[in-house]
Amino acid sequence: MGLVIKFEDEKKDKGATAFATLLDLVNDDLDSVNQTILLKMQSPVALIPQLAGHLIASGGKRLRPMLTLAASRLCEYEGDRHIRLATCVEFIHSATLLHDDVVDKSNLRRGEDTANAIWGNKASVLVGDFLFSRSFELMVEDGSLEVLRILSSASSVIAEGEVLQLVTANDTDTTEHAYMEVICAKTAALFAAACEIGGVIAERQASECEALMSYGQNLGIIFQLIDDVLDYSAEQKTLGKSVGDDFQEGKITLPIVLAFRRGSDQERDFWKRTMEELDQKEGDLDKAIALMEKHNALSDTIERARHYGAIARDALAIFPDNDYRKALTGIVDFCINRAY
Amino acid sequence: MGLVIKFEDEKKDKGATAFATLLDLVNDDLDSVNQTILLKMQSPVALIPQLAGHLIASGGKRLRPMLTLAASRLCEYEGDRHIRLATCVEFIHSATLLHDDVVDKSNLRRGEDTANAIWGNKASVLVGDFLFSRSFELMVEDGSLEVLRILSSASSVIAEGEVLQLVTANDTDTTEHAYMEVICAKTAALFAAACEIGGVIAERQASECEALMSYGQNLGIIFQLIDDVLDYSAEQKTLGKSVGDDFQEGKITLPIVLAFRRGSDQERDFWKRTMEELDQKEGDLDKAIALMEKHNALSDTIERARHYGAIARDALAIFPDNDYRKALTGIVDFCINRAY
Repeated sequence: MGLVIKFEDEKKDKGATAFATLLDLVNDDLDSVNQTILLKMQSPVALIPQLAGHLIASGGKRLRPMLTLAASRLCEYEGDRHIRLATCVEFIHSATLLHDDVVDKSNLRRGEDTANAIWGNKASVLVGDFLFSRSFELMVEDGSLEVLRILSSASSVIAEGEVLQLVTANDTDTTEHAYMEVICAKTAALFAAACEIGGVIAERQASECEALMSYGQNLGIIFQLIDDVLDYSAEQKTLGKSVGDDFQEGKITLPIVLAFRRGSDQERDFWKRTMEELDQKEGDLDKAIALMEKHNALSDTIERARHYGAIARDALAIFPDNDYRKALTGIVDFCINRAY
Repeated sequence: MGLVIKFEDEKKDKGATAFATLLDLVNDDLDSVNQTILLKMQSPVALIPQLAGHLIASGGKRLRPMLTLAASRLCEYEGDRHIRLATCVEFIHSATLLHDDVVDKSNLRRGEDTANAIWGNKASVLVGDFLFSRSFELMVEDGSLEVLRILSSASSVIAEGEVLQLVTANDTDTTEHAYMEVICAKTAALFAAACEIGGVIAERQASECEALMSYGQNLGIIFQLIDDVLDYSAEQKTLGKSVGDDFQEGKITLPIVLAFRRGSDQERDFWKRTMEELDQKEGDLDKAIALMEKHNALSDTIERARHYGAIARDALAIFPDNDYRKALTGIVDFCINRAY
């Protein structure tokens, strides 16, 4: 047991080191992004910087804007457009989070009260709209129609994915295919766009921009797969949200899809009662986790993530093996090792 | 009494005729806009066209896209970009309506159940996000950074105005100035942008684009002023929403601002109880309307609208006095005469 823990600690360390390596490489740029975020969320309407500031200060890793920064540097970009565009990416992400928390009725995010818990749903919807609009204003200031195309298309796809998730919620018949469709849209599309625009502003050829897009897409898939695992395994302290949130809402994620499909009739009745009818009693969450462990649903979800991780790594293979590529490759490990 | 009614009927007719005249001029273009709306709200996620279709089919006048069509024709524009851009304008408006209805908890709009009443708040938030994103995708397809600048800036201003309205809600200390700030942002900014882009695509000089913007801005102000009057005077059948909605929510509109300021201490206590504390009993709405009538709050709000109407008309004076200018001028009367 001691050995297992040590092994898992090492994996965790490897992930943490990879994140620290990337952070180190883009640190100065990220400072500029943070300043731009603060500057561009200003408004004479005080609630806007208050609410947006709460969200943005509440401990997000800034992974998505870091990807834009690193992807553009990998492509040897030397201007400063990546700062503003990384800000756009973070604003789109923040707007999505605000609307998600309203939709999910979440009260905690990364261990902090959500904006809707403090200021109410109305404010979260409207400040989300503001951040989203502001993000487009910033893109227009940047002036590249190609970047605008990529990010506006990603935004549509994200919204489509969110609606798809809503209509397929609480349906234990959901297939792995349908689940993948949802997470590709709601999560991976922004990761893909965040990486692709790094190549676009560096004026790299289509094949390189596509490679960055593919890396981002697959990284986003991993990120969401592991997020869905963490909802059943992490301590609230580490994850910053309550364990079992997805279970409580009846959100059908891959661990549930696998456990349901591999389960007995009796087990499927359990999933239908808890996830479809939302008829949950004390001990049900523990039972759900036990069923997932019985059918290796959590560990196989991590295995699926490894598959997409391999694709993400290979996508970067056309770039020179410099510090940025090493760091971006390391982020694949970071995302997977979050699960441990 | 008979004479008064006849006089008011004539005014109403004059407004209706003005609208019909504009509609007649842009009718073919508007058909194309309606087709583009249907086409561009399609998605493999069936709920999106269902929900968006419900909203878009539910009897809106399409006034904002008609303004883009008429403004571009006034500027002798002969291409077809105005069709797509008018669609963008309607999509931004529709997204705003969906989020507004969530924020206001409205169950009726133009006499129909609102989308949130049928499909719930979550779906309305997310489909609103989709329409908004799709609108930006369409603008990017159009390819003009100047149009993108105008519409993304308008979107930010709208969101800012909505938040401002939220934080100043239920405050009887609201001044006419603060109220005007809210409606300029939340309503007039889109009218202004809808008109301005007509001049931009016709490649007119700055002074003409600004004139169109000013016309739209003032028309939007009128539109909102009269909307706020109608909330206390129209029959539900005509207006398609419940009379007294604003009162019930404690929304501070100009009629309330005027009645509060002109009222006695005792009357102000009434407004504070009903609008700030939202402590309302039977008969309070009737009393509110009686107080507004006593202080000419509704008729003076209409007088204020006339002032902005005069500015809107004069803004168009630099254009040749052709059918389009006549029709756009007529729309000022249409918006004011809705009050009768």
